[in-house]
Amino acid sequence: MTKQILSVSNMTKASLLVLSVVLSLFSFIENPNDKGIYVKNSTELNEAIDQANPGDEIIMANGDWNDVQIRFLGYGKEGQPITLKAETPGKVFIGGKSDLKLGGEYLVVNGLYFINGASPSNAVIEFAINEDTVANHSRITNSVILDFNKAQRNETDLWVLFKGRHNQLDHCYIAGKSNRGPTVRIDLAGNQNIKNYHKINNNYFGPRPPKGGPSAETIQLGNSYTSMTPSHTLVAHNFFDRCNGEVEVISSKSNFNEFRNNVFYKSEGSLVTRHGNYCIIDGNYFIGDTNSEQIGGVRLIGTGHWVTNNYFYNLKGKTFRSPLAVMNGIPKSPLNRYIQVTDVVVVHNTWVNCTSPLQFGVGSNVDQKDILPASEIRSERPIRTIVANNLIYSDKGDKQPVVAHDSLDGIRFRNNLINNQGLSFRKLPGVETKDFSLSELEENVLIPANDLSGSALYKGFEFDQITTDLFGNSRAEQNAVGAIVKAPTQKPNLIDISQYGPDWFPLNSDKKDVVKTYSVRSTSQLISAVQKAKQGDTIRLTASKYKLKTPLKIDKHLTLQSADIHKKAIIHYNGAAKTPAFEMNPKGQLTLKGLILKGEKAQYAFASLKNNMSSLYNLTVVDSEISGFDYVLKAYKYSFSEYIQLKSTVITDCANGLELSEETDDKGEYNAENIYIDNCRFKGVGKNVIDYYRGGYDESTVGGNLVVTNSSFTQCGAKEESEILLNTYGIINVNLSGNKFRDNQVKYVARLWGAKNNMHSDNEITNSGELIVEENLPLKLMY
Amino acid sequence: MTKQILSVSNMTKASLLVLSVVLSLFSFIENPNDKGIYVKNSTELNEAIDQANPGDEIIMANGDWNDVQIRFLGYGKEGQPITLKAETPGKVFIGGKSDLKLGGEYLVVNGLYFINGASPSNAVIEFAINEDTVANHSRITNSVILDFNKAQRNETDLWVLFKGRHNQLDHCYIAGKSNRGPTVRIDLAGNQNIKNYHKINNNYFGPRPPKGGPSAETIQLGNSYTSMTPSHTLVAHNFFDRCNGEVEVISSKSNFNEFRNNVFYKSEGSLVTRHGNYCIIDGNYFIGDTNSEQIGGVRLIGTGHWVTNNYFYNLKGKTFRSPLAVMNGIPKSPLNRYIQVTDVVVVHNTWVNCTSPLQFGVGSNVDQKDILPASEIRSERPIRTIVANNLIYSDKGDKQPVVAHDSLDGIRFRNNLINNQGLSFRKLPGVETKDFSLSELEENVLIPANDLSGSALYKGFEFDQITTDLFGNSRAEQNAVGAIVKAPTQKPNLIDISQYGPDWFPLNSDKKDVVKTYSVRSTSQLISAVQKAKQGDTIRLTASKYKLKTPLKIDKHLTLQSADIHKKAIIHYNGAAKTPAFEMNPKGQLTLKGLILKGEKAQYAFASLKNNMSSLYNLTVVDSEISGFDYVLKAYKYSFSEYIQLKSTVITDCANGLELSEETDDKGEYNAENIYIDNCRFKGVGKNVIDYYRGGYDESTVGGNLVVTNSSFTQCGAKEESEILLNTYGIINVNLSGNKFRDNQVKYVARLWGAKNNMHSDNEITNSGELIVEENLPLKLMY
Repeated sequence: MTKQILSVSNMTKASLLVLSVVLSLFSFIENPNDKGIYVKNSTELNEAIDQANPGDEIIMANGDWNDVQIRFLGYGKEGQPITLKAETPGKVFIGGKSDLKLGGEYLVVNGLYFINGASPSNAVIEFAINEDTVANHSRITNSVILDFNKAQRNETDLWVLFKGRHNQLDHCYIAGKSNRGPTVRIDLAGNQNIKNYHKINNNYFGPRPPKGGPSAETIQLGNSYTSMTPSHTLVAHNFFDRCNGEVEVISSKSNFNEFRNNVFYKSEGSLVTRHGNYCIIDGNYFIGDTNSEQIGGVRLIGTGHWVTNNYFYNLKGKTFRSPLAVMNGIPKSPLNRYIQVTDVVVVHNTWVNCTSPLQFGVGSNVDQKDILPASEIRSERPIRTIVANNLIYSDKGDKQPVVAHDSLDGIRFRNNLINNQGLSFRKLPGVETKDFSLSELEENVLIPANDLSGSALYKGFEFDQITTDLFGNSRAEQNAVGAIVKAPTQKPNLIDISQYGPDWFPLNSDKKDVVKTYSVRSTSQLISAVQKAKQGDTIRLTASKYKLKTPLKIDKHLTLQSADIHKKAIIHYNGAAKTPAFEMNPKGQLTLKGLILKGEKAQYAFASLKNNMSSLYNLTVVDSEISGFDYVLKAYKYSFSEYIQLKSTVITDCANGLELSEETDDKGEYNAENIYIDNCRFKGVGKNVIDYYRGGYDESTVGGNLVVTNSSFTQCGAKEESEILLNTYGIINVNLSGNKFRDNQVKYVARLWGAKNNMHSDNEITNSGELIVEENLPLKLMY
Repeated sequence: MTKQILSVSNMTKASLLVLSVVLSLFSFIENPNDKGIYVKNSTELNEAIDQANPGDEIIMANGDWNDVQIRFLGYGKEGQPITLKAETPGKVFIGGKSDLKLGGEYLVVNGLYFINGASPSNAVIEFAINEDTVANHSRITNSVILDFNKAQRNETDLWVLFKGRHNQLDHCYIAGKSNRGPTVRIDLAGNQNIKNYHKINNNYFGPRPPKGGPSAETIQLGNSYTSMTPSHTLVAHNFFDRCNGEVEVISSKSNFNEFRNNVFYKSEGSLVTRHGNYCIIDGNYFIGDTNSEQIGGVRLIGTGHWVTNNYFYNLKGKTFRSPLAVMNGIPKSPLNRYIQVTDVVVVHNTWVNCTSPLQFGVGSNVDQKDILPASEIRSERPIRTIVANNLIYSDKGDKQPVVAHDSLDGIRFRNNLINNQGLSFRKLPGVETKDFSLSELEENVLIPANDLSGSALYKGFEFDQITTDLFGNSRAEQNAVGAIVKAPTQKPNLIDISQYGPDWFPLNSDKKDVVKTYSVRSTSQLISAVQKAKQGDTIRLTASKYKLKTPLKIDKHLTLQSADIHKKAIIHYNGAAKTPAFEMNPKGQLTLKGLILKGEKAQYAFASLKNNMSSLYNLTVVDSEISGFDYVLKAYKYSFSEYIQLKSTVITDCANGLELSEETDDKGEYNAENIYIDNCRFKGVGKNVIDYYRGGYDESTVGGNLVVTNSSFTQCGAKEESEILLNTYGIINVNLSGNKFRDNQVKYVARLWGAKNNMHSDNEITNSGELIVEENLPLKLMY
């Protein structure tokens, strides 16, 4: 779902969108330009900032502002802010090495568009100019930050860094962060930054691709070192669209934060109360996808959180990513590990068509106490926790709606109802079967069709403070189990994007061009077409042979295919040694179909850039043949691919296969999220047939996925030093099924990790060593 | 200083006392008895409680109420509480196995006197009847809990246990707790107990003797497991009179507590922010004593505490007990250890005649990293901490007014002034020398005689919220460094006890009788006199010899002495084996002068009870001779003595000497606080000559004191299994000086602990093994 698709799918809301644009223009006209200070360049901007008084508006001229480091220092007053705004919202492009730092009081920034650049500092936007000069009562609104990535994923920054107090980020669109660091972070070190009452509301957090390792949260509120601070940040009415960066979409690491009425749309992660206590998670929507086990819900660690009125739909995540994951803690936990769950309240939530939605004692690892230090053993089950008045509906029935990873004796279940379609499950006092049906209020939102207000409710301590339901209906007059008392007067229109982000975004110019197909009949035409082609174009190879001497640079979505699938075109690459036929650049997304790729021993078929992989690349090879290369794929350190897929492809006579093991710092990073090999033949690959590595002990890492199915490996691994044909050390999810291994000179076909999601079945192994499973792998502790 | 002495020394305040008694009587008369429900026994009381309505008063008849377990469950209303009160305040004595538990809303308890008993439950008074029925908006006032100890010090209870919210303990007198457990504790487990806004105010916390191990705080606010909870308890206007239980007089273990305007009078401990953060310590008086290094001030651990307007006088404590001890933390500390100090504010305090008052990085133990686990190493220095606008005065000059146990680079010193009498000290930017003098406002309170308002002040973040000084003078009109801007309009009268505790206490009947002297000339007269004698009496032994067959029970303060110091009376004890001549009971305080004590090998000279040592005992032996016993002193497990003093006494021909090593659980406990041996002769003591033990690693323990001076040890230790003559394992303070050791068949005279305060000098050692010092002793970790 892209933003465009969303708006198309919500034509009924187009009128609202138009209306709000008109209103916005109107308000602009209301403040005639003579009130504003019009600036055309940095010098004028700085001068205007220096001289600004409360109530002043500084208007940045439309156009490109490159390499500007805006230091917006000013002292407005309540009701009379100093405003920095775009001449036309969305027409002021901040690019190059640019950033914006605010200091002072009552400042507003409106309508800027950060694109085609990166911050030269620690943040794109920061609510502080230096340690002693923070901003208070200031606001970033109606602005966009898009793909504003540093050159490599290991280079850290934030895109919006909150400091000070009473600051706000609202109606912004922020998407595409690939480099290390949360997208938005609240900094709480220093008394001037606590009790901040910041607001992050009505924003559209667009897709953040998986990073392949930690530190890719969309919002992080503090860190473990400041996790005792009172924060009081409000995150409300935001849309999180496929925020897949890492396991935590939101990582709350401070106290008294509130998360209200947000939509988590197919985001591969959870809202996690990682550190800090007493958070409120109320009235949020967690929308999953039947096809993804990565999409989570709420994961709880710590004390005193209230989880109320939330709606969980179609979530298939497990354990750490389960719809509700209440974790086990570490006894007397170190500050940066897992505090025991106590005094948590989970009341009036609804789970619809989720798998094993309620999980308790998640992360229990008592069985690993012999291989991990005591300070890593999560043996403390949740206590003094109440789970009451919740509603569960499973359309197919759920064998295990409540999962107990440890004893449940610290949980009080009261007056929860479940329709499990008659399927039996372990009975729990306080979880009662009830027959009721649902009706669709709108896409993704199913509400009880029956009146459930007759069912008894448990009245726990301060439950009377839950005054409304998910839709804002009062619970005083009529009340019921679950998040929903009755249908709302108005539908929520969850995926109506006009509710989130700037009203001017996306721009018309952002719209996708119509895709083209080029036919090339010579090497020079091929080279030219790869250069000229635009996002999504296809290049048909009509000749039988192409001779390349320099790499083809792939920096967009491209498909190369033989014109005639039955007469595969040959691409013969004889470039310099250690250079690739296809150089995968940031955002390069290459599909090869029906091609024969040949090297001359010293070359690589595919490789990432050695440096400056500011975004990920993807590679799909179908119905093709690859031979005569030093490496099939060489992924350099800091490069990352979300998908590498080989299908019905033959790989022969290469010194190395797929090399995805350059992240050797053992900090949880890895070089590719998903590697799918299906129906392929590997023959005569000397070593590193598949070499895929993730290092560092981090129980919350759920990534690295390798699926190898229906493929054959013959006479491979003759030069393998590790003695392992398919090396998957530290990868969490591995599936080797239906493969044939014959005459591979290795000790092990594979060494799988039993404690994780590593599986194998139906493999034929002949003269190829063993396929072994080790329950626990020794890994370096990261913390 | 006892309460009586205080009131004598404050005759000027007697009129106020009278006035308040009169007012109290008047208010009682205002509520005529016909409004109250008069009850004479438990049955009537329970019935009255059952039937009570808002506004009702239940009046307990004067007299003894023994073995009553009052369950005060009721629901009063704001302005219409249900009151449980004494017919006459102080004349309702609750004794025996009694306790009081409150549940409900708006309850008041007034005028009860808990004495001569102990709680049969976990608390004497508890603001809860069970887990689900706590009290809110309830109050204990004008009451006394005195010596209400459980039978042994290892039996744990609390005297006042707070649960619920908005409860109050005020105008009470509480003293004498000897058993394990804080005197007052706030319990924060469970959401119904957080954000409690309890008040503990205007109480008189009378002497609490040292316990000889941990868990003897006067007030504990939470525990480490609930240290993330918001508490908001206010502790204000209390007097802490020699609250010596352990190193923490107040142990704050939760967040947002406030300590205001309390007087800590010669209390051997500190106000400690042990766990939890964001406490306010404002306007308190810490009064020390030139003769004690045990009296501390404020010790800080954690984040965001504000220490303002405090007055520290004559404090001589060191490191953990220094006037201001800002500790080092443990990296990523476990929940129950030492969180790093960050964001702390120490502003506008005054230190007068304290020794090395400001200490930072206290507890740094990086040099012990080879013998302690990493999780015990306090290597994290305080950071983001501001120390500003403070005033220091030293009448003799202080070589080291600021002590840096670690780097000071995390501390910002600004605009602090010191008068160090010209004595040089390590210069620190932000600590400036200033010539000024002090004048005595009243006893223990010295204020600047010069106007210091001309000195520059540092204006830090939110310093404007420090609106008044120690005396409540506004800082808006006139401001100055230190706690005091100018003299108050009225003197604080710090030690005017009428400001604290009940107005009716002490009762006239509590007054001490005139001490008597008995002369006894026979064994039967001796036995009779010991029984009849009252607290403080003296018994003169006029005969030359007394023959005892059963132990003399010592349960009060008694002196036994020879009538003629030059003709020592002989007490010959031939009771049963393993029985003592003098059986030291709880509160037994025995002084022997000029006596000869003889046993017949199998007996003990002195021993504690084997069980039920509900209070401590003390023993002093002067100018005497002890011989022929199995043990000179046998201290059983759970017994405790504050002082054991032997002076000018000869000990010969005993199988064992002083055995004070029964606390072998290694939880920090020990059997005696102070052992002083001076000018004594030990000869022919077979083993355990002095056997004194404290086990368990706990850096905050400061106890166990052994001083052996000018004494001789000859032909001792022949049967010693430990090979050590004077065994002091784990004792923090040891001083062996000027002694002669001759012909003792041991390997070591002593093995001292170099890292602690263990010293030796001028000892002559002949044919007696070695006296060695070990820098670090291996000790069992307690946490």
